[in-house]
Amino acid sequence: MSDISALVRDLVVANRILARENVVDAYGHVSVRHPDDPQRFLLATSVAPEMVEEDHIVAFNLDCTPVRHDGRPLYHERFIHGGIYEARPDVQAVVHAHAEDVLSFSISTTALRPVIHSGSFMGMRGHGFSAAARSLIEVVRMAVYIPRNARVQMNALRLGAEIRPLHDGEIAARDLGYKPYSLETRRAWRYWAHKAGCAHLVEEQAVDHVHKPWGSE
Amino acid sequence: MSDISALVRDLVVANRILARENVVDAYGHVSVRHPDDPQRFLLATSVAPEMVEEDHIVAFNLDCTPVRHDGRPLYHERFIHGGIYEARPDVQAVVHAHAEDVLSFSISTTALRPVIHSGSFMGMRGHGFSAAARSLIEVVRMAVYIPRNARVQMNALRLGAEIRPLHDGEIAARDLGYKPYSLETRRAWRYWAHKAGCAHLVEEQAVDHVHKPWGSE
Amino acid sequence: MSDISALVRDLVVANRILARENVVDAYGHVSVRHPDDPQRFLLATSVAPEMVEEDHIVAFNLDCTPVRHDGRPLYHERFIHGGIYEARPDVQAVVHAHAEDVLSFSISTTALRPVIHSGSFMGMRGHGFSAAARSLIEVVRMAVYIPRNARVQMNALRLGAEIRPLHDGEIAARDLGYKPYSLETRRAWRYWAHKAGCAHLVEEQAVDHVHKPWGSE
Amino acid sequence: MSDISALVRDLVVANRILARENVVDAYGHVSVRHPDDPQRFLLATSVAPEMVEEDHIVAFNLDCTPVRHDGRPLYHERFIHGGIYEARPDVQAVVHAHAEDVLSFSISTTALRPVIHSGSFMGMRGHGFSAAARSLIEVVRMAVYIPRNARVQMNALRLGAEIRPLHDGEIAARDLGYKPYSLETRRAWRYWAHKAGCAHLVEEQAVDHVHKPWGSE
Repeated sequence: MSDISALVRDLVVANRILARENVVDAYGHVSVRHPDDPQRFLLATSVAPEMVEEDHIVAFNLDCTPVRHDGRPLYHERFIHGGIYEARPDVQAVVHAHAEDVLSFSISTTALRPVIHSGSFMGMRGHGFSAAARSLIEVVRMAVYIPRNARVQMNALRLGAEIRPLHDGEIAARDLGYKPYSLETRRAWRYWAHKAGCAHLVEEQAVDHVHKPWGSE
Repeated sequence: MSDISALVRDLVVANRILARENVVDAYGHVSVRHPDDPQRFLLATSVAPEMVEEDHIVAFNLDCTPVRHDGRPLYHERFIHGGIYEARPDVQAVVHAHAEDVLSFSISTTALRPVIHSGSFMGMRGHGFSAAARSLIEVVRMAVYIPRNARVQMNALRLGAEIRPLHDGEIAARDLGYKPYSLETRRAWRYWAHKAGCAHLVEEQAVDHVHKPWGSE
Repeated sequence: MSDISALVRDLVVANRILARENVVDAYGHVSVRHPDDPQRFLLATSVAPEMVEEDHIVAFNLDCTPVRHDGRPLYHERFIHGGIYEARPDVQAVVHAHAEDVLSFSISTTALRPVIHSGSFMGMRGHGFSAAARSLIEVVRMAVYIPRNARVQMNALRLGAEIRPLHDGEIAARDLGYKPYSLETRRAWRYWAHKAGCAHLVEEQAVDHVHKPWGSE
Repeated sequence: MSDISALVRDLVVANRILARENVVDAYGHVSVRHPDDPQRFLLATSVAPEMVEEDHIVAFNLDCTPVRHDGRPLYHERFIHGGIYEARPDVQAVVHAHAEDVLSFSISTTALRPVIHSGSFMGMRGHGFSAAARSLIEVVRMAVYIPRNARVQMNALRLGAEIRPLHDGEIAARDLGYKPYSLETRRAWRYWAHKAGCAHLVEEQAVDHVHKPWGSE
């Protein structure tokens, strides 16, 4: 059995980080698949991510019904999360958000392309974007870097010359080399938690609790 | 009789939210029609919105004379508010503001167009913009999203390709589906109040007090 | 005799406002002509504006020697201030600053033009800009709005269509109608002081102390 | 012998300033050559710069092995620092960072050029940028101004007319006249430390401790 309370705490931290980094505001959410039951996932009730506390986290079945319904209002967009977990058994965590700098691409025919190393895993669709990843820490990192990638590309396009996005080989090499539990990723998690005012929820080894379906890094 | 003190408190919250979200600064204001007397509206005396307290809220007649004049200085631009309430009996709340990102459109021949769902109700004129809506919570939401819409459109235009604003059908569908007292709108109101440091003024059901001229949602 | 201590306090507030509004950082300064002796002006010793206290304010002769030299380091650029007071007897207050959004114009052949009402008094030169006005409150207001004007023009230019700056008639009309001690200007001063954390230095009538060489408004 | 504890404190301040000024985030670092042993340099262990304390600062040999290894995780990118100290005996301090506004240039064929006086010492390479200088205070100042230079150039390029970067003569004149321990540079250091919340670590003469290999200014 996994340490669910540590995972719930990490999910609270993830909510606060995404709010502090302007990825989500009143809208947008982050979820994580249940470590012991792949047919379930954890997500907050209908609360702005900046205000999420441990009590707000509840378990959902993949059809998006709450495992125990206590009458609290729920995010309508939880169906985006359930749908992704159902379709992609390899996905362990999901963010759905409307970060402003990504929206400009969504109404333009110019494609958002990976231009910085940290942005090389992203995928988009619809009016906002959804990011899916193999762990909570990884999906938070992607969601923080996607809008940053958008700004860097946007500004580079305005410099009035050619731009040089990452080519497929660079992205593949990066995908291969990326370690979601690396030293640098942990450092970022702790730093973002510190900025978001919830350093106290992050213990030295906190992110180790996050389930690692592929074993060691 | 309506609960005027709750509405006054909501109007204070509206002022603080608009300041915190950079829609207003020393200039700009928000008003609400009196729930029991459509010939009157509530607006602060001449104070920057961030500094508005319940004591600053006074009632005005539609000709913009204060119902009880106590000598405190008043906004000169209150005539914009009175004029709108007089001309449009369906309007329950008004914001007038000069948000920087909207001003660029006001000196350009490029029109500001609805490009994100949340921006689909806006209307502009003159050197700033005025937003009018069916409730206080709705006009605040519009006023927060109009500058955001401006930024998204501005950045999309700079991407150097075609942009795809919402078409009339999308706007109409949105207008039809929009519920000013929906779960999501309440969540946003509480979140913005929290960010603006006045969560204590927002009770769980606060926005229910706001008069609903069309009955239930 | 004027109330010098109130003017010194206003000059401290001016420093803090300009820092809070990102007009100055470690560099940049604001001065005011001595109300009783037009051959002198008041300016801080060499301290970043955000950190200026009443003790830092000293009097200078127009040749930029301090009236009483106590060995504290002085701004090298005080000569810009002295030079303006000497050349322009009508000027009562001066700001010199390097606000980032203005610098882009200073290296471009595109001229910064008044595009918003609040920006209609500005003048520029060299690597930063200097603003000179008839009162402290007026020069602060100009210095806050010049970078804002720069951003609005910059963004309008990028919208890819024609822009419509204020024409000479509008500027002249505005100049004529502008009242440095109007209700709105006072409201802005108090608001900016509040944001800058020095509301306690601004009494209800504080800016009335500022010398009015032209008598009543 | 130099006052190492004062230099360590200055390095902590440098970390905090760079974080506060958005030059570094979870990534990026600043180091200083050991004043008594040019074959060594001081750098934090693997911690986000905003969270660096005096305890985190350790000494490294030029081959980037820690002088005393206590098992704490280290920055992988410390090799950038060691490499620069080895190749350039005149360099006393190094910053490596990924500031967003610089990244747009790194994926564009438009070159980042010195456009403001403060930016005239910069050098770039790879996916981020490295700045090397003759003192800690100087490298921090450069690292703060390089992204600012990037923004000013970026915005000037968008004004749709010619830009006029500094020409070689201006840069050379500036290089000649620049004094890393000038009054203005000290003022900036104190101001940035104040903003970063570590004014208490900066005594009046703090930056005097920094080794001056060329003697007096």
